[in-house]
Amino acid sequence: MVEVKRKMDVEAYDAVILGQGAAAYAAALYSGRYRLETLMIGPTFGGETATASILANYPGYVEVDGFELMSRMKEQVDRLGVKTVQAQASAIAKVEHGFDITYEGGQVHGETLIYAVGRERRKLGLPGEESLWGVSYCATCDAPLYAGKTVAVIGGGDSAVKAALLLSRACPRVYVVYRGQAFARPEAVSLRLISERENIVPVLGTRVTRLLSREDALAGLELSQPFGGSRELAVEGVFVEIGAEPRSEMARALGVALNEKGEVMVGKLMETNVPRFFAAGDVCDGAGDLKQTITAAAQGALAATSAYKVISVHGNACEHHCVPFEVD
Amino acid sequence: MVEVKRKMDVEAYDAVILGQGAAAYAAALYSGRYRLETLMIGPTFGGETATASILANYPGYVEVDGFELMSRMKEQVDRLGVKTVQAQASAIAKVEHGFDITYEGGQVHGETLIYAVGRERRKLGLPGEESLWGVSYCATCDAPLYAGKTVAVIGGGDSAVKAALLLSRACPRVYVVYRGQAFARPEAVSLRLISERENIVPVLGTRVTRLLSREDALAGLELSQPFGGSRELAVEGVFVEIGAEPRSEMARALGVALNEKGEVMVGKLMETNVPRFFAAGDVCDGAGDLKQTITAAAQGALAATSAYKVISVHGNACEHHCVPFEVD
Repeated sequence: MVEVKRKMDVEAYDAVILGQGAAAYAAALYSGRYRLETLMIGPTFGGETATASILANYPGYVEVDGFELMSRMKEQVDRLGVKTVQAQASAIAKVEHGFDITYEGGQVHGETLIYAVGRERRKLGLPGEESLWGVSYCATCDAPLYAGKTVAVIGGGDSAVKAALLLSRACPRVYVVYRGQAFARPEAVSLRLISERENIVPVLGTRVTRLLSREDALAGLELSQPFGGSRELAVEGVFVEIGAEPRSEMARALGVALNEKGEVMVGKLMETNVPRFFAAGDVCDGAGDLKQTITAAAQGALAATSAYKVISVHGNACEHHCVPFEVD
Repeated sequence: MVEVKRKMDVEAYDAVILGQGAAAYAAALYSGRYRLETLMIGPTFGGETATASILANYPGYVEVDGFELMSRMKEQVDRLGVKTVQAQASAIAKVEHGFDITYEGGQVHGETLIYAVGRERRKLGLPGEESLWGVSYCATCDAPLYAGKTVAVIGGGDSAVKAALLLSRACPRVYVVYRGQAFARPEAVSLRLISERENIVPVLGTRVTRLLSREDALAGLELSQPFGGSRELAVEGVFVEIGAEPRSEMARALGVALNEKGEVMVGKLMETNVPRFFAAGDVCDGAGDLKQTITAAAQGALAATSAYKVISVHGNACEHHCVPFEVD
């Protein structure tokens, strides 16, 4: 961790939050209510929640559009006077009393940092993937929508196998389409369960080459097999489970400990191995594999509470930074 | 843990949830969506959230009435076919494949148990405490409502001191009224901070004998001192921080490990030291001191996910219990 010399004119905050999804907004809500001087920095509004169409599993809303839910979180936070910079942060440096954060167009100081930048889902890269009804990236979120329908899971890792197991409780047939000749390191128990579940049909050594549609909905998959030929599989839903990359690079560069999936490792109160650096949401391992809006929001609230404790004990940004520094 | 003989006619569920607050309903939401046979057992609807008037810190609602929020969670869960028994559970026995739960009027079996029974707040026991505007039990929740107002905290433990510190960020004067002659074991740092904060005024060796009101709002406190005499203190808000009892007795009796506050100790995924027994919400230590609707709801979702994993691996209630048992 390199101590850099502080610029005289750097703006200082009690808490800088990186991200603009559910974890970041919940953190901003609590941080603002604790009266911390708070700044959010993120390139796009709403995170993964905002890209979901209808959520039926956020407690307190029977159904809510993801973008609408995030807009309400934003309204809550805007009322508290939290500032937002619409930009991509590019670097974090450890300095005295916290961190200096560089983003497109500027630099700020945070006495504490809440890292809530989410993760990047891998996509198939096929036409229709973004627009067709019937393409999902979250079995936990969407399985109930597909009760009684034939579906496919794309992928062969542990998350693909677990998605298939969950879907098999509600769907008459679940294909698991994977390019490899065997599933890629699922947990032993998942492998046993999948072999016992008669309505799960593995389709190995196979790639998806096209999404077939009828009007605006998925109608099937075009599959290609390595030794030639292609065939069509009629399904009404496809669950893409080919992995996700936590956006943990800036944290790693700072010396923040990551788990084997590249997620920031947090304790119960969202603390990391680096003092004053907290994490929340899908970039961290706070809820294991359960990456949901409700868990992300709770983690944001916890991270802000931990940041407040630091400020409460060590003093706020103004005490340290309101008087211009000598440049030597 | 005593293994009791199973009754032939006991109804069996994949997951039995004790409680009817935010943690319990979020658990039921996820459990129902995982297609677990689920039963909720609790004496009163809505938990502590339902008794809050307006919540402004539940992410996604700018403001929402606590009872209304819980009613929406109930509607979400009712749609999934989750059953509810309006009764007080009185005992839990560890048996093969889970637990037998006894309640007023019956007994059921749960392959897994989610313990979300909350905690009991200690109250002053003074007239007006339930009805006056200006009496709060949660500084984290309500501090922003009192910005610019003179308030008092009742109590002398660490939570009272921390409430005073938080309120002192928004309020011109914060009295801390405590019957003891010194604060009762606050953390050393809290004690230092309270002595440095000029707008915090300790009022020790003093009891609150009456809540003074003007129309429907708190206007002050009548205080009595041990060596005679009483005086009045004008305040617009009072925060009662005289402790809370986690309702962990049934868990303790089963051998579930508790922390020094009597809270059920949980891991990140709400697991306890007793297999198949999960806890969530204010009865557990999942979020440290931050007992909020958002954290309780997330813990409920996590507990249900952990219960689902058990059922997924070990089979469901029907497999074990649909065939009547031999009674020997």
